[in-house]
Amino acid sequence: MRFTAEQRLDDGVLEREFTLGEVPGILWTPGSAPAPLILSGHNGGLHKRHPRLVARARHYAAEYGFAVAAIDAPGHGDRPRSAVDEQARADLRQALAAGQPVDEIVDAFILPLVERAVPEWRATLDALLSLPEIGATVGYEGMTASGIRLAVAEPRISAVNFFAQGFVPGTLRQEARQVTVPLQFLMQWDDEGMERQPTLDLFDAFGTSEKTLHANLGGHAGTPWFEVDAAAWFFPRHLK
Amino acid sequence: MRFTAEQRLDDGVLEREFTLGEVPGILWTPGSAPAPLILSGHNGGLHKRHPRLVARARHYAAEYGFAVAAIDAPGHGDRPRSAVDEQARADLRQALAAGQPVDEIVDAFILPLVERAVPEWRATLDALLSLPEIGATVGYEGMTASGIRLAVAEPRISAVNFFAQGFVPGTLRQEARQVTVPLQFLMQWDDEGMERQPTLDLFDAFGTSEKTLHANLGGHAGTPWFEVDAAAWFFPRHLK
Repeated sequence: MRFTAEQRLDDGVLEREFTLGEVPGILWTPGSAPAPLILSGHNGGLHKRHPRLVARARHYAAEYGFAVAAIDAPGHGDRPRSAVDEQARADLRQALAAGQPVDEIVDAFILPLVERAVPEWRATLDALLSLPEIGATVGYEGMTASGIRLAVAEPRISAVNFFAQGFVPGTLRQEARQVTVPLQFLMQWDDEGMERQPTLDLFDAFGTSEKTLHANLGGHAGTPWFEVDAAAWFFPRHLK
Repeated sequence: MRFTAEQRLDDGVLEREFTLGEVPGILWTPGSAPAPLILSGHNGGLHKRHPRLVARARHYAAEYGFAVAAIDAPGHGDRPRSAVDEQARADLRQALAAGQPVDEIVDAFILPLVERAVPEWRATLDALLSLPEIGATVGYEGMTASGIRLAVAEPRISAVNFFAQGFVPGTLRQEARQVTVPLQFLMQWDDEGMERQPTLDLFDAFGTSEKTLHANLGGHAGTPWFEVDAAAWFFPRHLK
C-alpha cells in the first residue's frame, strides 16, 4: 500500500489517497487511534470521490471516530473500463429504458465485477490492518452484491450495512443465506430502479440472526442524511 | 390531574402516578426541565406498568431527558372491563386460535376503544402541558390504531413512532393517509400474529413525507432493545 497524497481536512480528519497494485483508494482517519474500520463499497459506476460517499466517510470519522476506506472497483472511478464493461453498461441502460427484464444482463455484468472486487477488498483489508492507526474491528457498508460475497468470504468483517439500491444477481441472492453477521439493510421505498418485493425477499433471505430493515420514503438517490447516524450507531454495537 | 403517589427511582427519574377523572396514568420525568414529552400508548390488554413499557419510559427519561406519560386505555390495566370488552376479547382469541378472519371482530372491538381512548389522551395532554416540568413539544409512540386517530386529531403531536404489532381496523387504515407528521414504524418481521403484507401496506399508506420503516427479525414480542435508542434519536429531530 502506497500513500500518494494526504491532506488534513477542516473537520480534523486525515484524508489519504493510496494505491495497492492497480487499485486506487482513499483512507479517512480520525484523530484517535486505533480506530475501528468501515469499508465503503460504492455502487454502479460511482467514483470513490462521489460527494455523498465522501460526506458519509468524513462524518463517520469526524463525529464517530471510525476509519473509513473506499476503493474504486474494477471499471469504476479512476480505473479503466474494458470494452466488455462498456457494452454491459450500455446493454443494461438500454434494457432499463425499454422496460425489459435485466436479470441476464445483471448476472453477466455484476457477477464478474464482484468476483474481481472481493479479492481486491481482501488485499486492501490486509494492508489496512497492518497500519497502527487502524483497529482490529471491521464493518462493511454500501453495494450489496459485493458485500454479500465479501461478508461470506471474510471472517474479519463483523457487521454490514447494505444499500438496497443496486442490482444483485441471483447467485448472490442465494449466497445471502450464508451471511451470518449482524446486518442493516437500507432501502428506498420508492426506488424508481427497483421493485419492492425482490428487495424485501433479499432482506428475508439473509441468514443472520440479527438484521434490521430501514426503509425510507423517497426515490433511488433520496436516502435521508440521518441514516448515516443510524449506521454510525449500528456499527459500534458490533465493532467494539 | 391529581398525583396519587410518587417515587424517585435509582436512575434519578421521578415517577408519579396520577388520575384524571377515571383515567389512571404514570408520568416519568427527568431531572432537567422543561422536558419534551412522549405519550406512550400501549397495546391490546397491556397495563401501564408492563415491564417493557416501564423500562422504555425510564430509559427515555434517564438517558435522553424526555418526559414520558402512559395511561390505561378503557378496559386496560387498572380500569374495569365491560361485559362487551370481555366478549370481544374472547371472540378475538377464539377466531385467532381457529385461524379464522378477524377483521370484523377487530373493527367491532378496536374502533370503539380508539374512539374512547383518543379524547382521554387529549385531556391528559391538556393537563400535562400545564405542568412547568413539561415542555411544549410532544411525540407519541406505541399502539398504532389509537395513534393514527390521535395524530390526525391532535395538532400538538409533532412526531410519532408506531408499533406495528397491533390490529388496525380498516377505517383507521384509511385515516393513515391523513397522518402528516414525521413517522417511524416499528415492525417485527416474523410476527406470529400479523401477516407482513398488511403491515407493509399500512406503512405505504401513511400520508407523511418523512417516514421510516424499521423491521427487525423475530416474533411479536421480540423487538430488540436498541430500537428504544433508535426512537430516542428519532424524536429529538422533531421535538426540539
